[in-house]
Amino acid sequence: MKLVMIRHGQSQWNLENRFTGWTDVDLSEQGVKEARAAGQQLLAEGVTFDVAYTSYQKRAIKTLNIVLEEIDELSIPVKKSWRLNERHYGALQGLNKADTAAKYGDEQVHIWRRSFDVAPPLLEEDDARHPKFDEKYKNLDPVDLPKGESLKDTIARVLPYWESDISKDLKAGKNVVIAAHGNSLRALIKYLLNIDNEKILDLNLPTGVPLEFEIDEHLQITKAPELF
Amino acid sequence: MKLVMIRHGQSQWNLENRFTGWTDVDLSEQGVKEARAAGQQLLAEGVTFDVAYTSYQKRAIKTLNIVLEEIDELSIPVKKSWRLNERHYGALQGLNKADTAAKYGDEQVHIWRRSFDVAPPLLEEDDARHPKFDEKYKNLDPVDLPKGESLKDTIARVLPYWESDISKDLKAGKNVVIAAHGNSLRALIKYLLNIDNEKILDLNLPTGVPLEFEIDEHLQITKAPELF
Repeated sequence: MKLVMIRHGQSQWNLENRFTGWTDVDLSEQGVKEARAAGQQLLAEGVTFDVAYTSYQKRAIKTLNIVLEEIDELSIPVKKSWRLNERHYGALQGLNKADTAAKYGDEQVHIWRRSFDVAPPLLEEDDARHPKFDEKYKNLDPVDLPKGESLKDTIARVLPYWESDISKDLKAGKNVVIAAHGNSLRALIKYLLNIDNEKILDLNLPTGVPLEFEIDEHLQITKAPELF
Repeated sequence: MKLVMIRHGQSQWNLENRFTGWTDVDLSEQGVKEARAAGQQLLAEGVTFDVAYTSYQKRAIKTLNIVLEEIDELSIPVKKSWRLNERHYGALQGLNKADTAAKYGDEQVHIWRRSFDVAPPLLEEDDARHPKFDEKYKNLDPVDLPKGESLKDTIARVLPYWESDISKDLKAGKNVVIAAHGNSLRALIKYLLNIDNEKILDLNLPTGVPLEFEIDEHLQITKAPELF
């Protein structure tokens, strides 16, 4: 079976160098072009899918919609889950990365961005950026709503969805495409390729590029792209 | 609960005046604009949805995607079913309406287009337009695949989906949007407003205009737009 992962195209805040996380930022014009190119590449390769997965965030959903348009597979089922969302960047969300470094120091920012299990400063309960104030998450159990996550935390909420949904479709012989985010895809790749906690921090996924895996019925990866 | 139906925006073949049916024709530029305007109208009215339905056909799916973009609700679940597809126009699919009239006579074409229970000439089993040759329908029971439908036939395959899925979401208190086709929406409206077999033939739905209904927990329509 084919398992293709696509990190969303460039977003408006990638462009502005701001911490995004769960902020629901749109694709930039460049991001739309990247998504279209990803679809064109899959079309040229003749890759087809039976089911698609994405997050609750529009930069990933739009990337997926554009890819499905390009490969003429808009009619396949699309399953969305908050568990595929980007890492929640807590109280850093919205801040410019340069300003954050000026305020907290380069070293602290480096720790937040490049450590496995250190969460950013958490959101206060009454912070307008708290996911409980976002209609999209109204049906979630409040204990599941993050106020800031480390990569480790992100992995912990992505993997149950792999178990409950994505892996079952693959076991059933389906070709799967996942349009998601830098850190939710890192979580899946770490798990599938058994990458250790240090090395995963060096994995930087390009935006809008299809990462094509092959996987067997025992969920063993039999073919993977060059990632490092 | 709100139940909003939207007939897809103008398609390329609406524009060329050809019988479309299950042919998977794209929106025209005008159709994209109509979909965007439909979304803008719903946004201005503050209408929100919990779940969306559409067909397996790209002109309806794209209309829905554009509407959800405009109202910033891309993250809601989207359920797709072939049962919401357009009426299957059999061997007339692809023909220009004027040419068809020249070939079969105005009266015969009028009967095909404006009778309740007369199907168009059916597709032969080996006709390349037969849905069995379309990947999209590979998981359907072959007995469900139409070779040409009357409006009556269309209604007969739309209503089971109302029963099994759409009505349940409404009973559960959800606001529902359906982006579909002239005849699949006619089927739902005929059933919900108890319109007789003669009168339903006079119902012509505009493309890209939200038809806003209110419906109670007993699935009784409490408010309907002016349709005739």
